[in-house]
Amino acid sequence: MDLELIQSLVKQNQSKIVFLIMDGIGGLPRDEDGKTELEAAFTPHLDELAKDSVCGLQTPVSTAITPGSGPGHLGVFGYNPLKYQVGRGVLAANGIGFDLKEGDVAARGNFCTINNQDQVMDRRAGRISTEKNIDLCNLLNENISIPNVEVFVETVKEHRFLVVFRGENLSGKIKDTDPQEIGKKPLDPIVLDSSAEYTAGLVSRFISQAHMILKDEHPANMVLLRGFSQKPSWPLMKECFGLKSAAIAAYPMYRGVAKLIGMDVLETGQSIDEEFDTLEQHWDEYDYFYLHIKKTDSYGEDGDFEKKKAVIEEVDRQIPRLRALHPDVIVVTGDHSTPSKLKMHSWHPVPVLLWSKDCRKDSVDQFGERACILGGLGTRLPADDLIALALANANRLEKFGA
Amino acid sequence: MDLELIQSLVKQNQSKIVFLIMDGIGGLPRDEDGKTELEAAFTPHLDELAKDSVCGLQTPVSTAITPGSGPGHLGVFGYNPLKYQVGRGVLAANGIGFDLKEGDVAARGNFCTINNQDQVMDRRAGRISTEKNIDLCNLLNENISIPNVEVFVETVKEHRFLVVFRGENLSGKIKDTDPQEIGKKPLDPIVLDSSAEYTAGLVSRFISQAHMILKDEHPANMVLLRGFSQKPSWPLMKECFGLKSAAIAAYPMYRGVAKLIGMDVLETGQSIDEEFDTLEQHWDEYDYFYLHIKKTDSYGEDGDFEKKKAVIEEVDRQIPRLRALHPDVIVVTGDHSTPSKLKMHSWHPVPVLLWSKDCRKDSVDQFGERACILGGLGTRLPADDLIALALANANRLEKFGA
Repeated sequence: MDLELIQSLVKQNQSKIVFLIMDGIGGLPRDEDGKTELEAAFTPHLDELAKDSVCGLQTPVSTAITPGSGPGHLGVFGYNPLKYQVGRGVLAANGIGFDLKEGDVAARGNFCTINNQDQVMDRRAGRISTEKNIDLCNLLNENISIPNVEVFVETVKEHRFLVVFRGENLSGKIKDTDPQEIGKKPLDPIVLDSSAEYTAGLVSRFISQAHMILKDEHPANMVLLRGFSQKPSWPLMKECFGLKSAAIAAYPMYRGVAKLIGMDVLETGQSIDEEFDTLEQHWDEYDYFYLHIKKTDSYGEDGDFEKKKAVIEEVDRQIPRLRALHPDVIVVTGDHSTPSKLKMHSWHPVPVLLWSKDCRKDSVDQFGERACILGGLGTRLPADDLIALALANANRLEKFGA
Repeated sequence: MDLELIQSLVKQNQSKIVFLIMDGIGGLPRDEDGKTELEAAFTPHLDELAKDSVCGLQTPVSTAITPGSGPGHLGVFGYNPLKYQVGRGVLAANGIGFDLKEGDVAARGNFCTINNQDQVMDRRAGRISTEKNIDLCNLLNENISIPNVEVFVETVKEHRFLVVFRGENLSGKIKDTDPQEIGKKPLDPIVLDSSAEYTAGLVSRFISQAHMILKDEHPANMVLLRGFSQKPSWPLMKECFGLKSAAIAAYPMYRGVAKLIGMDVLETGQSIDEEFDTLEQHWDEYDYFYLHIKKTDSYGEDGDFEKKKAVIEEVDRQIPRLRALHPDVIVVTGDHSTPSKLKMHSWHPVPVLLWSKDCRKDSVDQFGERACILGGLGTRLPADDLIALALANANRLEKFGA
């Protein structure tokens, strides 16, 4: 989908669009009855909605590609994930809800183990506990001191942390310091662009100081940094699509991605019920709502077919609340598939339904992977076309040409 | 579709291809029986044709985009409408059947009302009658005099007219003089490219003279000009596809679009029956015929389900005449959807059937929006692939590579 084309055609009205994203919704059939999680779930309300919708299967990134959570979501939001790529440092910040400012440089860090010739012996420092990680981050935060910049060291999990440099004239165009091999020394931060020389100097000082501060810690006596990056300045939802948009998501990662494209992130609770409460409370304030359901993916990754199915059923019970708000367009889909059979994200296309009063419904009467094959949206809809279709169905696009 | 690729593979033979374009054919279901205009129509001949065809749904411009008539047709003719864009002055000329020559500059004009400080008080001069417009155009044509150029002022409708400048070294790279706001003065014609300075001077003189000539006319005492443009020099049907092609269209707009890509425009009557007469009369002279049915769109825009359905049935009754000519390839589709429910062009994909003896027919046995979802062409065929498919089915394309 061509953002500039859509942008040139956008018009305003009072319509409301809801994207209900069940993370990792797509699945694979179980042996006992050949049904996927979505097919096996009791979903009378989603099926009724599907009956009045145009359905299909969408491709979040590209055929055969297994999307990460960031690209999967950007696709559904209308941002081609191959074009709009986020640095890994920025993704790590999103993942823990760290509020990156314009100009900050973020990197992912590993605590690692080096020997007395400074060679890396374990890139993950024996996967230290998260508690130990917290202690080490505190130690670094208290002792690192670099003129003219603030440095934030934040625990992610086990051996993984986030480091953020905040100051003037910083650049993320720096290579990883992780040698990716045992027996090699950590690499110097090499610039990819001369504009990053100043920042590379700061990074060098950070690494040297970290080396000193951690030298008596074992096994986590050194740091490796990867994915230096800055918050991208992308066109925002409001500019591209004319939509005042809000994100309802319990997990920091998804709130972060929504922020990158200018959505307001609404305070909400951890339960699905509370997310729908939030939707109701803010209904009058926005044109577009992104409502994120995390647990479909979590149970998919756990390989728990039954619990993934149960989450889908829980969402289904909320559909009447959504419909009672009388949105003009409803899209229900996921950011990728996470079949519990595979216990991971997968490349399979994702079921999607789009409801509006003028959607030209097809003959699909069940919301499921195989039922959607026969839908009017086809089996290969690029995810980033969904927002354009939603705008068209909301009568928010002018005619192209005379 | 890649014009250059197709062009490199084109070969000649004696085959004949017919594109029967029912303008705005796609629709939406009515409440009483859930059928669209095309589904509700009694179309035994189209259904029989569909049974022996490969069917599907095509996208004229891009997913979610509502096409204007120009882009919708260019897509079906194999010209990507996002790449082949026509200026609005040229479209206005097409719309009234004005025969633009190479190098002419055309613009759309409005008669408007200005006050005695030359500020625009009404951009449409109170929507004067078309009769008044004709008088004013005559007045301008008789009195405008600019050395070295011919100027044609032609009535479109109500306050709208067309102006064409004909002469040497003209350019359409000039900004609109319409300030688009009440209370502002008409703008000077500003060049977008220095090559247009000479033309901008001529346009200035035209405006000054029009100001003098119209000064005692009320309310239409001034002109505003928009969409300066020249006839594009696009690759023609003959060059791209090796097709000697003819257009059978009762309305000027469609004759104009066909001319832009080098079709011969055949004289024809206003009725569908007469259009098929024209087809029969010229059958031996061309490789490719574009036969345009206007009224499906007109009744769609009127919101008249029954009359749109009746036009489809009238076309259906002509199908035996078409088949009796033994064309090698028949394509039946539209340039966009115009659901009578919406009373306007829409973004919905357009049913299409392609018949040839070797088309590899699918299981679709009815020509309708939902039946075509299950067709072999899929639900998302770019319209500009149709001509290539027609050439392939006519055995007019060489193998690619050895």
